[in-house]
Amino acid sequence: MIILLGIVAGIITTSSFIPQLVKSWRTRHTKDLSLPMYLTLDLGIILWFLYGILTNDLPVLLANGVAFILSTTIIILKIRYK
Amino acid sequence: MIILLGIVAGIITTSSFIPQLVKSWRTRHTKDLSLPMYLTLDLGIILWFLYGILTNDLPVLLANGVAFILSTTIIILKIRYK
Repeated sequence: MIILLGIVAGIITTSSFIPQLVKSWRTRHTKDLSLPMYLTLDLGIILWFLYGILTNDLPVLLANGVAFILSTTIIILKIRYK
Repeated sequence: MIILLGIVAGIITTSSFIPQLVKSWRTRHTKDLSLPMYLTLDLGIILWFLYGILTNDLPVLLANGVAFILSTTIIILKIRYK
């Protein structure tokens, strides 16, 4: 039951980046986005991923694995569409 | 040692929102930010907070408590500076 809550929490926080990714992709405008935010976020996500490995916490692992992909894609869009 | 990694990960992911908050505050431009992203993120953060309570995970608790405040402030800036 608790692990289910963690999985749902992970799915929601991770998928929250999808609307930003779609918006940036469609509008090709990323001026208002903070590059330092997403770079810092990526670093933190990597550490959470390690934490998930060391604590055997599957929701933390999965959420941060997917979040890294989405956040990095936003970084690419940010650099591409200045 | 593992809890220290979690605390560092929490501090980094949580503080990643600060550059976005400062940027949005200073420029007063938030057009490129996705409101659905931050609304979804807030919902997910609340669930992670509950998960942190149920699993007695202090890093998860602290990180998501502060992240909620920062993310909600960005939502307010997004609504205010359309």
